[in-house]
Amino acid sequence: MRNIKLIIEYDGKSFNGWQKQPNKLNIQGEIENAIKEITKDEEINLIASGRTDAGVHSFGQTANFKTENDTIPIEKFPVAINSKLKKSIVIKSAEEVDERFHSRYCVKSKTYRYIINNSENGSAIYRGLEYHIPQKLDVEEMKKAIKYFEGEHDFKGFKASGTSSKSSVRTIYKADLRQEGERIVIELTGSGFLYNMVRIIAGTLVDVGLGKTKANDISSIIEAKDRKLAGKTLPPHGLYLLKVEYENK
Amino acid sequence: MRNIKLIIEYDGKSFNGWQKQPNKLNIQGEIENAIKEITKDEEINLIASGRTDAGVHSFGQTANFKTENDTIPIEKFPVAINSKLKKSIVIKSAEEVDERFHSRYCVKSKTYRYIINNSENGSAIYRGLEYHIPQKLDVEEMKKAIKYFEGEHDFKGFKASGTSSKSSVRTIYKADLRQEGERIVIELTGSGFLYNMVRIIAGTLVDVGLGKTKANDISSIIEAKDRKLAGKTLPPHGLYLLKVEYENK
Repeated sequence: MRNIKLIIEYDGKSFNGWQKQPNKLNIQGEIENAIKEITKDEEINLIASGRTDAGVHSFGQTANFKTENDTIPIEKFPVAINSKLKKSIVIKSAEEVDERFHSRYCVKSKTYRYIINNSENGSAIYRGLEYHIPQKLDVEEMKKAIKYFEGEHDFKGFKASGTSSKSSVRTIYKADLRQEGERIVIELTGSGFLYNMVRIIAGTLVDVGLGKTKANDISSIIEAKDRKLAGKTLPPHGLYLLKVEYENK
Repeated sequence: MRNIKLIIEYDGKSFNGWQKQPNKLNIQGEIENAIKEITKDEEINLIASGRTDAGVHSFGQTANFKTENDTIPIEKFPVAINSKLKKSIVIKSAEEVDERFHSRYCVKSKTYRYIINNSENGSAIYRGLEYHIPQKLDVEEMKKAIKYFEGEHDFKGFKASGTSSKSSVRTIYKADLRQEGERIVIELTGSGFLYNMVRIIAGTLVDVGLGKTKANDISSIIEAKDRKLAGKTLPPHGLYLLKVEYENK
């Protein structure tokens, strides 16, 4: 039995999210079916580092599956699987890993990117790959604000209301914001993220950029643990799962 | 009578090129109709710096039109026109220019970009926005080769066969090639370009990257003026009209 780890890029706008669900186009199901075709009808259970929502993109989603197949060389897996996939999903690499490796349980950190197009008229070419905000944002103030998210915090106020999880304490190792031409690029690396957490942090930073919230109010907004004080949830099409890092790698 | 200059971004894969033609979706026609809507049924003749072919993208196509309208402030034109356009075309800016300004006749230089994705498996997110070549290309040799295109040359061997034009002498002011992660980005600035010239130069550089042609053979290939010695015409979806510069800005 081989345990195979995949790095997967996908264009989120073509799918109803990662998770398998009947009658809705989803990434997990598409890849499982493609693997099944090349491993001759074996049932495949593809475990991802976590789900991504409808519309969210990935450069670095990581997933693993076990297979009895012992004929396909590991370096041939990406091309073989890709030949059975829609072009909106690409297996970037495949690696054989220890049988104990688990794409979700072994995560050390995840990095997400959120892209805002801050030009007056937006982009024709990258529409669907970034969120357009025509009002001029104060980038310097946003750069100050994002630093308050670094460290260990209870992010209860930064998760979708109504979602439960044992603890809402998470650690953000690195939080960066930069301007690239007409774009503002937000990157967050953390131990893990609550449901919608990156999109709510991005929405809170937009409030700072618009002058509705001050950078040095961020600490008290985090401490208040009240969803209503944080910004709105930005749409999924600006969000990218960039990279997943693991303990034993 | 006002003469208005527009900078236009578009996603080429949605259109059968710039030029107006019956029963085929084209960029010129879409923009003329949008302007006509906001100027109350005036007939609009939109003159571009040049045509772009089906599939070719633009960040900086420049076009001008004359209008009797004297009520819409110049800075409102982009938002007003964009509100009538498909999202695959965006007017980035509008400027009132001298009545003698002509988008084609007054061109000083044009800059084109060609993007090659040189990873084994290509990209899911940017498919349709770059050309995928899975075989590893020798980027250092391509960097040497591109420099031979700079200067004034007769580019007869680098135009689509069967196309006529008075002279095939053109000047390339700047020719650059760089690696950006899994991408190879080619940029050419010149006085003008023959039909398919950028895509044929890019194809010739790919031959160099594959080892089929040596960098220091480029001079003799240019001098031979024989289309058969140059590389193949790369597909349109990797090509971008980046910028057009004018004499009397």
